[in-house]
Amino acid sequence: MTVAADPSSVPTSPIRTDVLIVGAGPVGLFAAFEAGVIGLTCQIVDILGRVGGQCIELYPDKPIYDIPAIPSCTSRELVERLLAQCKPFDVPIHLEQRVDTVEQRDDGRWTVRTQRGLVFDVAAILLAAGNGAFVPQKLGLPEAVPLEKRHVHYSVPRLADFADKNVVVAGGGDSALDWALALRKVARRVTLVHRRAGFSAADSSVELMRRAVEAGEMDFIVGAIAALDVEDGALRSLTLRQIDGETQLEAEHLIALYGLVADLGPIAQWGLKIHGGRIDVDTSNYESSRPGIFAVGDIANYPNKQKLILSGFHEASLALRKAYAYAYPDKKRVHVHSSYDTKLAEKIGAAG
Amino acid sequence: MTVAADPSSVPTSPIRTDVLIVGAGPVGLFAAFEAGVIGLTCQIVDILGRVGGQCIELYPDKPIYDIPAIPSCTSRELVERLLAQCKPFDVPIHLEQRVDTVEQRDDGRWTVRTQRGLVFDVAAILLAAGNGAFVPQKLGLPEAVPLEKRHVHYSVPRLADFADKNVVVAGGGDSALDWALALRKVARRVTLVHRRAGFSAADSSVELMRRAVEAGEMDFIVGAIAALDVEDGALRSLTLRQIDGETQLEAEHLIALYGLVADLGPIAQWGLKIHGGRIDVDTSNYESSRPGIFAVGDIANYPNKQKLILSGFHEASLALRKAYAYAYPDKKRVHVHSSYDTKLAEKIGAAG
Repeated sequence: MTVAADPSSVPTSPIRTDVLIVGAGPVGLFAAFEAGVIGLTCQIVDILGRVGGQCIELYPDKPIYDIPAIPSCTSRELVERLLAQCKPFDVPIHLEQRVDTVEQRDDGRWTVRTQRGLVFDVAAILLAAGNGAFVPQKLGLPEAVPLEKRHVHYSVPRLADFADKNVVVAGGGDSALDWALALRKVARRVTLVHRRAGFSAADSSVELMRRAVEAGEMDFIVGAIAALDVEDGALRSLTLRQIDGETQLEAEHLIALYGLVADLGPIAQWGLKIHGGRIDVDTSNYESSRPGIFAVGDIANYPNKQKLILSGFHEASLALRKAYAYAYPDKKRVHVHSSYDTKLAEKIGAAG
Repeated sequence: MTVAADPSSVPTSPIRTDVLIVGAGPVGLFAAFEAGVIGLTCQIVDILGRVGGQCIELYPDKPIYDIPAIPSCTSRELVERLLAQCKPFDVPIHLEQRVDTVEQRDDGRWTVRTQRGLVFDVAAILLAAGNGAFVPQKLGLPEAVPLEKRHVHYSVPRLADFADKNVVVAGGGDSALDWALALRKVARRVTLVHRRAGFSAADSSVELMRRAVEAGEMDFIVGAIAALDVEDGALRSLTLRQIDGETQLEAEHLIALYGLVADLGPIAQWGLKIHGGRIDVDTSNYESSRPGIFAVGDIANYPNKQKLILSGFHEASLALRKAYAYAYPDKKRVHVHSSYDTKLAEKIGAAG
């Protein structure tokens, strides 16, 4: 594999390859190997800053016991083994790239764009995106939507934007406490709102916050945000539900830091049939409702689907055989057993 | 695993287990592990005298490159790894046992009998039998059928049966040459018939045969067996097609040794929907047309089926989850990720 150069150095012409693999987790990496075996070129994009997907993000050092013929290995070892396996095919991997839009052209091929400006020209798209992209958990209030990025925020790009403002930070984790503490130095007033008195943040942060409250540098209120009070398109106050009733809390900005949740992100807008946040596929080729777009691994949905890594390996292998027909409609692909293809064996064996 | 004791010591009562796995190749072995992971008991039967299936029979030392996360290993190593993986579950393996009949009882469970007298009482049957049992390639002549085992033979159980007989051995491989050479010492006359002058046998066997022909100890004729001439239910002669026409060759016994071919064997009589020698399955659970009987790996047939070992691993995993519902209809099985189940991790980790 090749980790592609700085993604900000955007090429001017589209990158042409047979298959775009979305997701550099175990299933995406094995798909890159399998594509090479059957004679397809491919490139990988991943929204994260490193390969390995949720395996590496969520449990890098936990042993896994159910990868066939590997009695025990950690996620990290699994990813290293898969990287070694696809190395002979030298597949470019573009990190920190979220796929954004797809468009099928008249010739049947697809133009895929990432949010940072990469453009791909591909015969097929293989979604191996696990549980999707991790995005901030949002407020469940409809009146919050039109205020987003103006008065309601789910991240803090620049502290200076909140200078001299009356800011409410909502949440009870590290992110909420750390930002509330940082904001108290620039904002006119900072109030931390959390639905209970206990926190999931580090003890040291909680202690710092309590001291800041005692010193009068910020406030802390236990309550749930029940409604936003909006006037002339601007946030005026929040309605907080508390044990003893409701209170109004004045606020110009609300920063909700409730942690990350898995989300399909822009893929949800591609017109694919989706069920329970996962993409419906045909179990004979793992193709979605849009021919040419495939979904494999945890992101795929079908009856009796099991979220097993080994299932993703199988699904990718079958999907790529159908993808081959899109990339090379005039060729009849001969089934390849890796041990019988001498040229392939030389290539893989030489690199191994 | 436990290789079960001498199969001739047949137990008097049926062996009760949740799932009977037919086939001890890579897919059958992984199925035994996966059954253990989800809480099913199982036992394995295989027609061969050792574990490993066609992998070990056909290409034990060829490297395989397409097992996920294992860049390269031989079939032998793959089988060793899979045996190590299922070791914690101590699954009995009954070798040299061909499944013969199945019967579904009123309570929904199955009685399965092997040709050597083992009887199993199981909730589900998982066929992981590769290309089926290997059986001798037979003559394509209808008149040969009623003569089988009397005048037409596909193996040589006892040399003495051919003492002082006029015997024709057909075939050009090691088996045909070796038996022809052995038979010349007991038979009245031995003629080797092969459709061409070249052989696929070892050079040393061919040389021995040529010397025996020169010494007048046996004959060799190039020709194809076109018909059998039968009189009063007994073989009298063969019609051989040769380049220059047909010849009659007197014979009391014909031993055709054309090598082994894959065959479903008795499974073909189980009333399963079969297509091209493979068993039709539903791709959501790899169940055959008879609920409770599953087919996985090379023996399974469905649209876009690929004979990949990794596909068999996936198919077995899904099939066993459906099998669980037959074994424990009242329990709701919770999906297990191997790394999250502490008891399981201890069991597997301790044995690893």
